[in-house]
Parts: sequence; structure tokens; C-alpha cells
Amino acid sequence: MDKLTIIKVGGKIVEEEATLRKLLQDFSALEGYKILVHGGGRSATKIASQLGIESQMVEGRRITDAETLKVVTMVYGGLVNKNIVAGLQSLNVNALGLTGADMNLIRSEKRPVTTVDYGYVGDVKEVNATLLVSLIKQGIVPVLAPLTHDKEGNMLNTNADTIAGETAKALATSFDVTLVYCFEKKGVLRDENDDNTLIPLINRNTFTQLVTEGIIQGGMIPKLENSFQAIEAGVKEVIITKADAIAPGQGTCVK
Amino acid sequence: MDKLTIIKVGGKIVEEEATLRKLLQDFSALEGYKILVHGGGRSATKIASQLGIESQMVEGRRITDAETLKVVTMVYGGLVNKNIVAGLQSLNVNALGLTGADMNLIRSEKRPVTTVDYGYVGDVKEVNATLLVSLIKQGIVPVLAPLTHDKEGNMLNTNADTIAGETAKALATSFDVTLVYCFEKKGVLRDENDDNTLIPLINRNTFTQLVTEGIIQGGMIPKLENSFQAIEAGVKEVIITKADAIAPGQGTCVK
Repeated sequence: MDKLTIIKVGGKIVEEEATLRKLLQDFSALEGYKILVHGGGRSATKIASQLGIESQMVEGRRITDAETLKVVTMVYGGLVNKNIVAGLQSLNVNALGLTGADMNLIRSEKRPVTTVDYGYVGDVKEVNATLLVSLIKQGIVPVLAPLTHDKEGNMLNTNADTIAGETAKALATSFDVTLVYCFEKKGVLRDENDDNTLIPLINRNTFTQLVTEGIIQGGMIPKLENSFQAIEAGVKEVIITKADAIAPGQGTCVK
Repeated sequence: MDKLTIIKVGGKIVEEEATLRKLLQDFSALEGYKILVHGGGRSATKIASQLGIESQMVEGRRITDAETLKVVTMVYGGLVNKNIVAGLQSLNVNALGLTGADMNLIRSEKRPVTTVDYGYVGDVKEVNATLLVSLIKQGIVPVLAPLTHDKEGNMLNTNADTIAGETAKALATSFDVTLVYCFEKKGVLRDENDDNTLIPLINRNTFTQLVTEGIIQGGMIPKLENSFQAIEAGVKEVIITKADAIAPGQGTCVK
């Protein structure tokens, strides 16, 4: 099977001119089929604030009321997405910016209200893998914004990590998928304050042991649980790395 | 040759929930291949104002400084475009929202500074007709935002009428193209205050006569000149009509 690399980068990287340029250069240098998934939360918060809309977060997730939905649709689907697309086109990468609504690529359902009402937030129900495979094989590089739709006329806000993970799983039968999650550190570290303590490879057994030993803790546990779910769904490997180190062979490899 | 209808609608129609829904229903009912081109100027002006950015217009064209470019990229490429796409998807129209940057669809050049510096405004240089034909024949309905790029990493603001006209011309060798410009009136009127005085058909000869007689004047003259340019470039017919009358057989037909 052909190899496909899916890179997920957060808002901080794509919202600053210098880090964005570096990322796009590194991304353009990656060989083979590829997809870029981006966030944009910082810009959304900033623009919402300028528009007098307060950003409410619960456990790191944005409460998306009708006005906030407009902001994220503008910022993620317009500002951030199109700047990335234009930047990649200048590097001769044939980028196509997409939300889940475009060609019905990712359909979701509005998250049910439980103890928290997240508002216009979508849980992914279906990724159109056939369409993505067709685009990719035509040499197109999809750039996915963290937005989906309910096929009933509503855009929905969807976490970028989830978009990347669900897309990776949906494509796992068509490609050897490497899913790369970029964050602030070089990867999973034995000592989170020391970049020289990178753990290069984690599997289920070593993961359990590292958690028992207290070396892996906090927010890294759900991140790795999600990675193992992707692996169990057929994704070949998940890399956790820094945005300036997306070339193969860097970061922590989960498999 | 297959028939293709390109509908251009202005901001007012697509920015209000009720008129947008009516338009999308009418558009979804159109038979054959089709493209929707939209504006969004009113929303851009409103959001720019809320962000403390003053909108400067010269002869109806927006002066686009760096901050204004961010606003139009957000509003046209994100908010307006994705609402239309999600609305069409709910009507089972396989819409794909695009700017000129996506797949390098429309390349433009920043307008040279003469007596006026329009800023980040792009004059269209090349429409990728092959790509559009391929998408359309796959059953995809392109929804074009009035944004292009310079292939050097910059998005550029481009008038929606121009996008529609240039797209129609580029596709004229592949389809029998009908280009529909929607505006506030039922079409070209003998008496601009009376919708019952619609002129159903105008050609070069009748146009010259109507201008000589003073019946066609003001802003309608350049609109018709642009229409004749499209006809001379191979577009089959140009329809000037109201947004609630886009079904065939309504408005003024220019050919």
C-alpha cells in the first residue's frame, strides 16, 4: 500500500507568520501522499474577544453558541485555512482547503446535552474515505479545517485532533497511514522539562508500565489512549512530536 | 455541448437567512451542471466595523489593506461560503466551496497602483478551466468565493462579478454557458421604477439604440458592456435578473 502522512498542527503554529512558513516548508518537503489538519483556537478567541464575544471553555473544549459558531467558521474555514492553502500553493503543493461540509466530506451530529451543553459542536459520524482517496491520488493535498456539518444545513465545530484521528482511521484500509500530532514538546518525555529524555518508541506494554511508574501522566494519557485507538483501527503509526520536527525519524513513535 | 449555468449573487441575498434559503432552494432546482458565485460585502463591512476597521470604497470597490484582507478572507472564504455549502448539502447538492487559491483555481495579480492604491486586490490572470470541467463532470457543484491568490502566498480580494465573468469565459469552449447576474431589479427596465417594463432581450444593436435613446444609462451601461464581452468570448447568453427569479425564462437575456 502507498504511504500517507497526516499532520495535525495546533493553532499557535499556524497563526504566527514565521512558524507557519517553517511548517509549510517542512510539510512541502515531506515525500508521498499527505494531508494537513489545522486548529486555530487562539485566533478564534482573539477575534471573538474583539467582537465582544466571550470564549467559554470546558476541559479545553470551546462552548460554541450561535455567535461563536460564526467566528470559528470564519476563522478556521476562512482565515487560517486559506492562508495555509495560499502558502502551500506558493510552494507548489496543490493544496485544497476543506471543511466537512465541502463535498459532504465529514458528517457529524450535534453533541447531545449532558451535564454540559457544548452548543454547535459536532461528533464525527462519517468520513468520506472514497472521496479523500480520489482527491489524494489525483495529487491534491487536502487541508482540513476543524469544522464539520450535520447534512441538515448546519456547520459544527469539531476538535482538530478528532478530525485528524477519524480521517486517519477512515483511510487506514487504503494507505499505510502515519498520523503525526504536533505539540509543544519534542515528544513523550521521561522528564517533561528535559527535551533530552525523549522516549522514542511506545507500545501498549511499555505504555502501561510507564503509566504505572508515574512517568506518563496528566494530559499525555488520553493523548496516548487516542493514539492506541488509532493503531487498533489500522493506522500504522502515530508520531507525537514538535511542529518543527515533522520529518520522519523524530519524536515519539506509538505503534 | 452540455449546458452549464453560472449564477452570481450579491451579498445582500446570501447574508440574510430567509433570502439565502429561498435562493438555495431555487438553485438546487436548476437542472444540469451549475456553479454558484457569491459576494459578501455587507457582512465584510459589518464585521470590519465591529473590529474597528473602517471600510473605504472607491467607485464601489473596496480598498483592501492588510487588515481588511484578513476580514474578507474570513467572511467570504469562511462564513458566507461555508454557510452556502452546508445549506446546499442539506438539499443534496454536492457543493464544494472554493477560493482561487484552492487547487490553484484562479490566479491573479495584485492590481498596480495608479491614482488609486486598491491594496490587496487581484486582477484575474488565469482560470483553471480543466480543473473546473473535471469537478463539474464528477457531479460536484463549485461555490466560488470572491477571493483569488497570486501563487506567491498571498490571498487577494477579487470582485464577484469578475470571478463569475472570467469563469464563464474560461468554460465557454467546454459548455454552453449561461451566465446569470442577480441584482435588485427584475432585469433591464425601460422605466427603472416599474418592474413591468422589463426588456426581455438585448443584443448589440438594440443596446446601442437604447443607450442613444437614454433608456439604458448609468451603472447599467458597464454591466451590459461586460455582458457583451462575455458573449464575444463565447458565453452563450447572459441573464440579468432578480435573485428570486433565477429559473430559466426570466429577466433580461443578453446575447
